[in-house]
Amino acid sequence: MKRTSRDIRTANRYEVLRQIVAESPTSRQELAAATGLSLATVATLVGELLELRMITEVGFEDSAGGRPRGLVAVNASGGALIGVDIAETYVHVELFDLALNVLARAEEHMRPGENRPAQVVSHVAAAVGAVVAQAGVEGARVLGVGVSVPGQVDRDTGVSEYAPNWDWHDVPLLDLLTEHLAYPLYLDNPLRACAVAELWFGAARGRGDAVVVNLGTGVGAGLILGGGVHRGVSNSAGEWGHSTLVLDGRLCHCGNHGCVETYVGAPGIMMNLRESHPESGLLHPRDQTATIDALARGIAAGDPVAVGVVRETARYLGASLAGLVNVLNPEVVVLSSWVARGLGEPLLDEVREAVARHALPRPLATTEIVLSPIPTDPVCLGAATFALEGALQSVGQKSAKRATPARSRTAPPS
Amino acid sequence: MKRTSRDIRTANRYEVLRQIVAESPTSRQELAAATGLSLATVATLVGELLELRMITEVGFEDSAGGRPRGLVAVNASGGALIGVDIAETYVHVELFDLALNVLARAEEHMRPGENRPAQVVSHVAAAVGAVVAQAGVEGARVLGVGVSVPGQVDRDTGVSEYAPNWDWHDVPLLDLLTEHLAYPLYLDNPLRACAVAELWFGAARGRGDAVVVNLGTGVGAGLILGGGVHRGVSNSAGEWGHSTLVLDGRLCHCGNHGCVETYVGAPGIMMNLRESHPESGLLHPRDQTATIDALARGIAAGDPVAVGVVRETARYLGASLAGLVNVLNPEVVVLSSWVARGLGEPLLDEVREAVARHALPRPLATTEIVLSPIPTDPVCLGAATFALEGALQSVGQKSAKRATPARSRTAPPS
Repeated sequence: MKRTSRDIRTANRYEVLRQIVAESPTSRQELAAATGLSLATVATLVGELLELRMITEVGFEDSAGGRPRGLVAVNASGGALIGVDIAETYVHVELFDLALNVLARAEEHMRPGENRPAQVVSHVAAAVGAVVAQAGVEGARVLGVGVSVPGQVDRDTGVSEYAPNWDWHDVPLLDLLTEHLAYPLYLDNPLRACAVAELWFGAARGRGDAVVVNLGTGVGAGLILGGGVHRGVSNSAGEWGHSTLVLDGRLCHCGNHGCVETYVGAPGIMMNLRESHPESGLLHPRDQTATIDALARGIAAGDPVAVGVVRETARYLGASLAGLVNVLNPEVVVLSSWVARGLGEPLLDEVREAVARHALPRPLATTEIVLSPIPTDPVCLGAATFALEGALQSVGQKSAKRATPARSRTAPPS
Repeated sequence: MKRTSRDIRTANRYEVLRQIVAESPTSRQELAAATGLSLATVATLVGELLELRMITEVGFEDSAGGRPRGLVAVNASGGALIGVDIAETYVHVELFDLALNVLARAEEHMRPGENRPAQVVSHVAAAVGAVVAQAGVEGARVLGVGVSVPGQVDRDTGVSEYAPNWDWHDVPLLDLLTEHLAYPLYLDNPLRACAVAELWFGAARGRGDAVVVNLGTGVGAGLILGGGVHRGVSNSAGEWGHSTLVLDGRLCHCGNHGCVETYVGAPGIMMNLRESHPESGLLHPRDQTATIDALARGIAAGDPVAVGVVRETARYLGASLAGLVNVLNPEVVVLSSWVARGLGEPLLDEVREAVARHALPRPLATTEIVLSPIPTDPVCLGAATFALEGALQSVGQKSAKRATPARSRTAPPS
């Protein structure tokens, strides 16, 4: 394990920019206090960010009796970042300024079966083209494009190693995208995207250890440990959906039995409903979104069937999340993605109770459980943040003015 | 989350000494290559360790054509470290030199019921006195005493918050020990002790992410993440024994049902045996150690009952460890503690197969599963290492010549 001084400098650079994004304008002194870094280190990092035009000087504030302090703020128009959320049925793309405000959005729908790599790539290229045109930014201002694709991803080579829902194996996604897009590209998966989004802009900000739980069709947990994203040795950490919760239980598409995902992913919730109330009108057999929406409306109306299914789902979720709380002892567990957003506070309340029944007292006492506070698509936001982190990684490297994107390690930039 | 430059310096100091302990004699150049730190940083850290007399200059080696390189080695006699392993039925104490060779050992047995804090403390004090006398070291040479106690521990205050087997709640263990022992004291639990022992001297050396699985009466997992011990926000991470493996399964003493521990801890293994073969002569109803020994002999002799019970236990263990592999994506999983040592290679083989059946291909491909290579009591070794880490933490602090031990934060040194 080598942690080089360059890694540390990069982590510190993230931390300083994160703080500036969160609280602009701010002074070097405030940044030093908030990050725990020395004033000299902060001054150096602020200098680098100024040189890159990611932040600007915006005046001075009086300090009690001392010299006036220079203030800096994010230079929102200093560049653009693009986030791409490739999901089972759609490609969603957003273009952001450097304060991570959304300037443009585009969405492409994919029909069932329309999932060959070339088809997906052409949807991505079309949507990226659309947001750049819509926002009216010059291509040169785009610092990078972050791409999230479900499943196991090799971010160094830009390869989608395994996407379970499409049965993709070793698809060189970034190489394919490079033929259409001239921007620096960064690949990772939705678990990592949601974790990074919470770390920079959401409920994990300023937290050392956080678990960001993605509840969608698939489920997983993006991990923030020691103040940074935990990727594991082959970037496949976080596959909590494939922990055994019920030994010899429901068959999972991973081949195992009793995985958490088969009880709390959207199809698992539909199964919970079908097993307890096979005739319920809440069930839309071929439509996960419609079923979750119907459950949400049912809870709001006090429908006992909906309330019961959400409670049953929370029981599974709580038993399994208690295991994560016991193992990782995080400060916060964040419920994210569309199922969590759809079922909202009622699910949260039930999950809190279920975790409290199962977790050990000491880790439980220090863990908050919250819904994600991010109002937009956290996967797009997180993917755009990959591009921001990529750009920051190259700061101060004499030989490079911009990031070394993932794809350039396997193929020369075209 | 503040990571100060002092934290980073301390981590680098650990890494350099770890490397010197592993490979003495060595040069600053080799240390820089092995740790990824700059030669200048290594030279500074080596200077600090020399000044503390933890290492010494031991001559020069020729470098091809260049200046001869100075060699350093651990100064084994530069101090003594004591490790205390408080378990359910015994207190085991070892005294080490700075190369972590055992110079003296003492053991005190505790009768069932003999578990009031004052009784345990007097056993610890007697055993520590015995090893100091036996090794013939002056008290002033003892750099510190690390103490491991099962359960949840607050290492900052030195309080045993909860020890499940004795029903201890908020016992101020270090304050009690301070009345008997004049050395700097450091408290933590066996999960952390085994993890630190593997990180410094065992299978986790040089690994970024490792899971050290303790298989004893209780079970848990010490976590090495990002090259250091992961403690969580209240030092209670690693309680993997209380993850749900079988929803609504066996009742656990934590109040939950279906915890891993109830299937793979020593009493759980006895239950596996009792359920499948209630009349088996392998079962010693009141003696965990005798039962595990009987199983080990049974496997060696090809007894199908013993083989079956170990296979069943490995099935539980493998399903649950696969979850840890999927969530954390570690480089290595180390099986440690007395049950793992007792059942040895046959258990390891079955666990490897069971994990392979349950884990996802990508994390599985990068994870090794091994038995702990540490030949002595890993808890004593790890506890002594707490004292070594404590001593290193104070290096370079101008105001202190030795560590600030945990207890001094609550009570002034007496």
